[in-house]
Amino acid sequence: MPDATGKTIAFQGEPGAYSEIAARAIYGLEITSLPCPTFKDAFEAVEKGTAEAAVIPLENSLAGSIHQSYDLLLEHQLHIIAEHVLRVSHCLIAHPEVQLDEITRVYSHPQALAQCAHSIEASGIPQAIASHDTAGSVRLVRDQGLHDAAAIASALAAEMYGMSILEREFEDEKTNYTRFAVLAPKPITPEGPSKTSICFAGKNEPGLLFKCLSAFALRDIDLTKIESRPIRGVPWQYVFYLDFCGSMEDERCERAVDHLTEMTTFLRVFGSYPRAVNHRAGGEAD
Amino acid sequence: MPDATGKTIAFQGEPGAYSEIAARAIYGLEITSLPCPTFKDAFEAVEKGTAEAAVIPLENSLAGSIHQSYDLLLEHQLHIIAEHVLRVSHCLIAHPEVQLDEITRVYSHPQALAQCAHSIEASGIPQAIASHDTAGSVRLVRDQGLHDAAAIASALAAEMYGMSILEREFEDEKTNYTRFAVLAPKPITPEGPSKTSICFAGKNEPGLLFKCLSAFALRDIDLTKIESRPIRGVPWQYVFYLDFCGSMEDERCERAVDHLTEMTTFLRVFGSYPRAVNHRAGGEAD
Repeated sequence: MPDATGKTIAFQGEPGAYSEIAARAIYGLEITSLPCPTFKDAFEAVEKGTAEAAVIPLENSLAGSIHQSYDLLLEHQLHIIAEHVLRVSHCLIAHPEVQLDEITRVYSHPQALAQCAHSIEASGIPQAIASHDTAGSVRLVRDQGLHDAAAIASALAAEMYGMSILEREFEDEKTNYTRFAVLAPKPITPEGPSKTSICFAGKNEPGLLFKCLSAFALRDIDLTKIESRPIRGVPWQYVFYLDFCGSMEDERCERAVDHLTEMTTFLRVFGSYPRAVNHRAGGEAD
Repeated sequence: MPDATGKTIAFQGEPGAYSEIAARAIYGLEITSLPCPTFKDAFEAVEKGTAEAAVIPLENSLAGSIHQSYDLLLEHQLHIIAEHVLRVSHCLIAHPEVQLDEITRVYSHPQALAQCAHSIEASGIPQAIASHDTAGSVRLVRDQGLHDAAAIASALAAEMYGMSILEREFEDEKTNYTRFAVLAPKPITPEGPSKTSICFAGKNEPGLLFKCLSAFALRDIDLTKIESRPIRGVPWQYVFYLDFCGSMEDERCERAVDHLTEMTTFLRVFGSYPRAVNHRAGGEAD
């Protein structure tokens, strides 16, 4: 765990957001939280020095990758210095004394709505409304005095805003984890088991991805994640996001990435960082 | 183009949905449209024989894959028999005589909201509300007489519901294409340049994805798309969706897929179909 006692940590969302829970799990309770309206604001807070680091969700075990985070990683020049996996348990939250059958709509972040899609349907709530973040949707329901609406957020958010929990564990699948990245202005050199996150776009030639992955496979470097994202303005061309086991300080990994540059038009290393103990490698062996 | 004159084609959404525009582009104007409330309903309409085929969006060149479609492909036993790429141009739609500065919220499908995120912000509309589909959001604004709300949908939807277009080409990037798949109960044998869509989960071993892709690379089979999706209930394990050039009738492709089964715990061929003329291959050479 990075040491940041008394440091300022930025995250997207209102107080009580899952990102704040993650930030406190990583850095302890002594941090100064810097809630930001958007992901972009959290990135910029670190770039401007208003915050020492930002805690940003990368992927959820049910809903998949948080594409906006990946797009912003590319647009900004921050480094990943840590990862953290948080068990996410959603609550259905409303004003005290409001009953489930009075609820006509539910507000939350689109990812949380996606994670609770079946529960929302089963509860007979007719309308799901996307809002900027989970905790913010609790505040919205409270501040606007909406007695026919609910929000999906953490138990912490319900507590912070003095609201009631209608249902706990509202997520469709209980194996619901979100993986967060800690972003800082400078890269670190991790010790012990580590991971590295990179992204690249390949030359437009046959067998491209196979050739790119060979840089790792031929050196017995395990991949824990691969993700493709469309390149804006260039239909059907993709950027690949890839995580592998090992640090850029390992000569083997450094050589693999060097090998990869032969096949790519663009490559960026987001950083090497300690591997989270509770993050099982997916797809490939750990 | 498949011949389906007079046939019934299912799609998700209300009349005027982009999927209906795609269905008519593929099959001509003589089809009977079967609008369905959800994607699942469209899949089931084909399974039950209520419709001969369904037209389902798979990916958008800006927002990426439509994960729900991929998840449903896996849950159902339909076959992909055609693909179609549609240029998507969104309109901001409201009641006649409503001005932009009167709009306090905008309704549309989450993908359309994502594709217009910057335009919505630039227009100063404070709230974006997710609804089931684009054309349905136009109907909602009309039926509920919402004079302080707008919808994002096709020009066709505006026309069908007698509403006004406040802004055309409201999407953030004009290179906005959606790729649709046509699903039917039985597979076809395509003639001419074709593509095949498959999905698989690999054994949990090092270099898995590299080994899987080798089945294609070693036979000079080009990939046009690869996508990973989390497996529900198994955190950080992924299913891979892969499109390649060629048909399962080609011995080379058939052998590649056979080779792939040695490395997978699960594999399914969704179908081989003619390659859309306006679909450039991404990532790998076409």
